[in-house]
Amino acid sequence: MRAFEALTVESLPNRLGSQAAITGRIGSDPAKWSVREVGDGNLNLVFIVEGPAGTVIVKQALPYVRLVGESWPLPLKRSFFEYNALVRQAERDPGMTPELLHFDEAQAIIVMEFLTPHVILRRALIEGRQLPKIGQNLGNFIARTLFRGSDLHMETRKRKADLALFADNVELCDITENLVFSDPYFDAPMNRHTPGLDGVVAELRADRDLKVEAQRLKHLFAAKAETLLHGDLHTGSVMVTAEDTRVIDPEFAVYGPMAFDVGMLIANFWMSYFSQSGHEQDGPRDDMRRYLLATADEIWSVFRAEFSRLWREERRGILYQASLFEDQGDTLGSEQALQGMIADIWTDMLGFAGIETHRRILGLAHNADFETIADEALRAACETKALKFGRHIAVNRSRIHSMADIMDLAERMEKEIVR
Amino acid sequence: MRAFEALTVESLPNRLGSQAAITGRIGSDPAKWSVREVGDGNLNLVFIVEGPAGTVIVKQALPYVRLVGESWPLPLKRSFFEYNALVRQAERDPGMTPELLHFDEAQAIIVMEFLTPHVILRRALIEGRQLPKIGQNLGNFIARTLFRGSDLHMETRKRKADLALFADNVELCDITENLVFSDPYFDAPMNRHTPGLDGVVAELRADRDLKVEAQRLKHLFAAKAETLLHGDLHTGSVMVTAEDTRVIDPEFAVYGPMAFDVGMLIANFWMSYFSQSGHEQDGPRDDMRRYLLATADEIWSVFRAEFSRLWREERRGILYQASLFEDQGDTLGSEQALQGMIADIWTDMLGFAGIETHRRILGLAHNADFETIADEALRAACETKALKFGRHIAVNRSRIHSMADIMDLAERMEKEIVR
Repeated sequence: MRAFEALTVESLPNRLGSQAAITGRIGSDPAKWSVREVGDGNLNLVFIVEGPAGTVIVKQALPYVRLVGESWPLPLKRSFFEYNALVRQAERDPGMTPELLHFDEAQAIIVMEFLTPHVILRRALIEGRQLPKIGQNLGNFIARTLFRGSDLHMETRKRKADLALFADNVELCDITENLVFSDPYFDAPMNRHTPGLDGVVAELRADRDLKVEAQRLKHLFAAKAETLLHGDLHTGSVMVTAEDTRVIDPEFAVYGPMAFDVGMLIANFWMSYFSQSGHEQDGPRDDMRRYLLATADEIWSVFRAEFSRLWREERRGILYQASLFEDQGDTLGSEQALQGMIADIWTDMLGFAGIETHRRILGLAHNADFETIADEALRAACETKALKFGRHIAVNRSRIHSMADIMDLAERMEKEIVR
Repeated sequence: MRAFEALTVESLPNRLGSQAAITGRIGSDPAKWSVREVGDGNLNLVFIVEGPAGTVIVKQALPYVRLVGESWPLPLKRSFFEYNALVRQAERDPGMTPELLHFDEAQAIIVMEFLTPHVILRRALIEGRQLPKIGQNLGNFIARTLFRGSDLHMETRKRKADLALFADNVELCDITENLVFSDPYFDAPMNRHTPGLDGVVAELRADRDLKVEAQRLKHLFAAKAETLLHGDLHTGSVMVTAEDTRVIDPEFAVYGPMAFDVGMLIANFWMSYFSQSGHEQDGPRDDMRRYLLATADEIWSVFRAEFSRLWREERRGILYQASLFEDQGDTLGSEQALQGMIADIWTDMLGFAGIETHRRILGLAHNADFETIADEALRAACETKALKFGRHIAVNRSRIHSMADIMDLAERMEKEIVR
């Protein structure tokens, strides 16, 4: 087996030029390919390879964290986990992930469909674009992938084999465990934040209830191996057109609690909401703000509806068996169990959403939503609202009962009626 | 590798006669060994092998469930999980498991120290014997094994490797999932119960809240991979003298919620409590009943104290890190998190204890505590109390706040003040 070697713009055509899955797509003469490196994420190389007949994406893991450098090694095997997660997501919600063309485990290379004219959802939201389909598409995606990867649906033997497979994704899981749940709450070496935030940062780090809650959520994340998560499901992991939505980059995939993906995803819409006042150079964003809260609401309500449909139609795993409920004519018992489960996901989702907000403003990996606000004072004002909002929903998660409450809270915080 | 072959009393000396770990213990001439088969469990062969110099136990798995027969195949690999669990338990609470002498994975054979004059704890309790050390020993055992196998203590990489290793124990886990959490609540083929129970059985199977709760607990068991469980920790898995306590038979070992081992263990004392009135042929058992409730109380309070000590002294895993609490002078934050965790274990422990009671009376694997009551009407009366007690604590687990409440409840049910 050839040792790992990072691709370059120059070497790529030679190295991949004999792969039928690629040549069949873009043309069989690698000399006619044009290659650009476009990776703007934190971890990997990403190439756009264009040939006479078409274009593909070539993604290659590096043996270290690209954002930090070789001082932070990271296993190539994350590419294996990403590939395996993409395969499962494609089965569980067809059409919502890029088509897979080729996978080379030793070289940590995944070749995928080039999505065009898609853009990263986060960029679109920063620009103030309203995508009409994402609430529906993403709500269904989380319901289908989370339900169908769990003991509600899968054969237990297969779920346990998958659990064991993904349990080896230790290093990426470690990033989540530290960067999401712990680093924001103490003076960790890789933290950074906008200068104007010193006061609120000190307040959050002295906030015992918040820190205990963040650690309870970490415990939940580390222990509750409920389903295969995307693991990094934010608006930077979604590519969109007005008509199409695709979810990418599941290299953080691991078995974890359903509420983690739900909360991280929805939190990124709430962060976008609080960032909008930093992007009003071309006019007010009131309509965009309404759109963002409505989309978060829609994701949740679509998730809830689709999860409920799957519960009623595809619940054939070992949990909440029909033999105890429907088969005895007790459909209301099954509905009672469903409501309990959705209520638990709601409560935990708010917790994960709250701390996601913190780590994106105080930790290592920041959000472009805020980072692209050049005026530091304005950025700090936006971030302060998001931080306080995150603290409120994380700590009070068992006392907040509806999306209407959240929308009202966000609007009142945006207008500084409560602060 | 030699194909699996079941040992017999006749073949054992020949087959194990060259194992130095055995000959060194009992004598090197197998012709002088005497062998008895004494397996009274549900699954395996167990031999006592006595030689001129000493005695050992030889336990061998069979490729089917002994209790049911060859129609129910069961993988030999359970012996591998048992061995690995015993190794870990011996590290985590030294002296509480039998000494391991030899393991043959292909033949599914574990050779262990012969414990003498130990008896099975359940037998001792049926006879009305009060063991003075078990509350302390078993409370410490669950605290130490559960704490030290979790992300509170272990290096996460090692915990995840163990999680993956034990995730393959699918078939034994499946037995727990079905026999404990589901079968008692519908007309499953392998169920059986004392004739006089038809009324209360019908009542329990029509009890929606109970069935939903049992399934929530099944969900918790299947999803919350928090620590390495013993997995079958009842009074039949404990061997005792007045001075010594040993825990045996961890072949159901799997990563699961801490509260499962705690609840199953304590439930077996409560079942023994309700069975005592079936064993009063030689006089009243009032003192024994007091002892059993006090011992359940002691197990819990020792567990709580030892778990708290370990939390303060050995919490070096990724959860509830000192960097967020003690290192910032916030020891009260750490205590707040500890109390939250113990409160959660308490609540879930009551749930698992409640349904353990049901499956031991209504499912496949019954308890000798009740089974040895020859008078069917008397047995049914004892079992009815235990069933109703189990239902009450399982469904009301978040409303019951102390062991004093439980002891009071049990006493009032025993006297039929409440029924």
